Amino acid sequence: MVYSLRAGGKRLRPILMLEVYKVLAGNDNIEEVMPFAASIEMIHTYSLIHDDLPAMDNDDFRRGKATNHKVFGEGIAILAGDGLLNFAFEKMIEGITNYFPNDDRGIRAMYEIARASGINGMIGGQVADLESEGKRVDKDTLKFIHLKKTSAMIEAAVKTGAIIGNASEEQFLALSKYASAVGLAFQVVDDILDVIGDENKLGKKIGSDINNDKSTYPSLYGIEESKIIANKLIGDSINALNIFGQEADFLRVLAKYLEIREN
Amino acid sequence: MVYSLRAGGKRLRPILMLEVYKVLAGNDNIEEVMPFAASIEMIHTYSLIHDDLPAMDNDDFRRGKATNHKVFGEGIAILAGDGLLNFAFEKMIEGITNYFPNDDRGIRAMYEIARASGINGMIGGQVADLESEGKRVDKDTLKFIHLKKTSAMIEAAVKTGAIIGNASEEQFLALSKYASAVGLAFQVVDDILDVIGDENKLGKKIGSDINNDKSTYPSLYGIEESKIIANKLIGDSINALNIFGQEADFLRVLAKYLEIREN
Repeated sequence: MVYSLRAGGKRLRPILMLEVYKVLAGNDNIEEVMPFAASIEMIHTYSLIHDDLPAMDNDDFRRGKATNHKVFGEGIAILAGDGLLNFAFEKMIEGITNYFPNDDRGIRAMYEIARASGINGMIGGQVADLESEGKRVDKDTLKFIHLKKTSAMIEAAVKTGAIIGNASEEQFLALSKYASAVGLAFQVVDDILDVIGDENKLGKKIGSDINNDKSTYPSLYGIEESKIIANKLIGDSINALNIFGQEADFLRVLAKYLEIREN
Repeated sequence: MVYSLRAGGKRLRPILMLEVYKVLAGNDNIEEVMPFAASIEMIHTYSLIHDDLPAMDNDDFRRGKATNHKVFGEGIAILAGDGLLNFAFEKMIEGITNYFPNDDRGIRAMYEIARASGINGMIGGQVADLESEGKRVDKDTLKFIHLKKTSAMIEAAVKTGAIIGNASEEQFLALSKYASAVGLAFQVVDDILDVIGDENKLGKKIGSDINNDKSTYPSLYGIEESKIIANKLIGDSINALNIFGQEADFLRVLAKYLEIREN
């Protein structure tokens, strides 16, 4: 568990959650959102460990290091993933008990994460992804997979930050729009990088999608059109933040970075 | 997920939970404990799906049916397990929101289950079990594995029923004693059945522990001594219920059944 958690990564989901929280509620009580930020990264990491297994994507490298099962064996990798998912809930429950004993923000935030990581979110997307291997899927199916597999958790990160940060309804809607556009753009860029990325910067082999015979944005739309789609989504995400002032500048820059990132 | 949930099984954990609840609180509000009873069975089922995988115990049959990965493939089996664990938490959170919005019994019960199923409970036991394969472990290590891998969840079932049923401190202690003795006895009997059980009644092949080179109660103590240990534990468990009247008779009979069961 520790090996994969410490393997690095962008920490996108917790960063989004913390930044959204800070936009709304400042820094003073930041510890109340930390259990959720840590937990969403644990859930993300578990999903990568299981996704890399031979029965799934069969990847040997992740973030520039050997994947979990290459180091510890498949049995321990499965249990490390299970352990991280379970531990994420333990930490969220402790966070609720400590910071929200009489306030339903805690349980609402945990539910947001639980729904996004489950069969109606990430796991549903992974199943659709696995069942689509070797088939040419249509654009709607591809969008479904990306929305569920990747966007759902990115959206949950933002919404959790908004819930714990006590967002108004208007703020919650704006941030949700930001999140869904950023989430889908993130995956489109991921698809592009798997074709034209630099393996040294990515820390993993490119061409994994092609080798696993997966439909992606580049395979259905071409590279140039995919870049235009990502660019438009990032524009939408930044526009969604118009109700906020400069306190949301980090979120704007982060969106732009996600478009032009190299890993 | 549905395939493995519907494959049968004794439903020991939810039955224990519901019965303990009924001893304390009767039948009238039984729906408030149902989300936890369903969830603990989902968590137990996920653990079996992952445990049966080739990288773990590599079992082809469970409850008289082909194991999940034999029917759906390893990738889907891993995801079905992940999905069940995650869904269990979704259902518990919904149960808390519906029945315990302003009452900490719900979150305390969920925490009991989360701790028991996690790295300090069941997963910890599975890791120790996996790392002990092919080694001769000592009696303390074997007891550790059994307590964590099996007893922890059986204890959590009882404790959850006690928490939701509003047990007094004395009742909670008595039920906890009952649970820990029943939990360990259950696993000792499991070990015995894996040596001398009837494959038709068990719904799975016997000799799996020997084939996986696992230390068990029979391998460390012999069959007869193991039976004496199980018998003593069941006696302890029944004695622990002395503070209750005939309303706890089902729990007493259940303990006795667990000692003499054939599957």
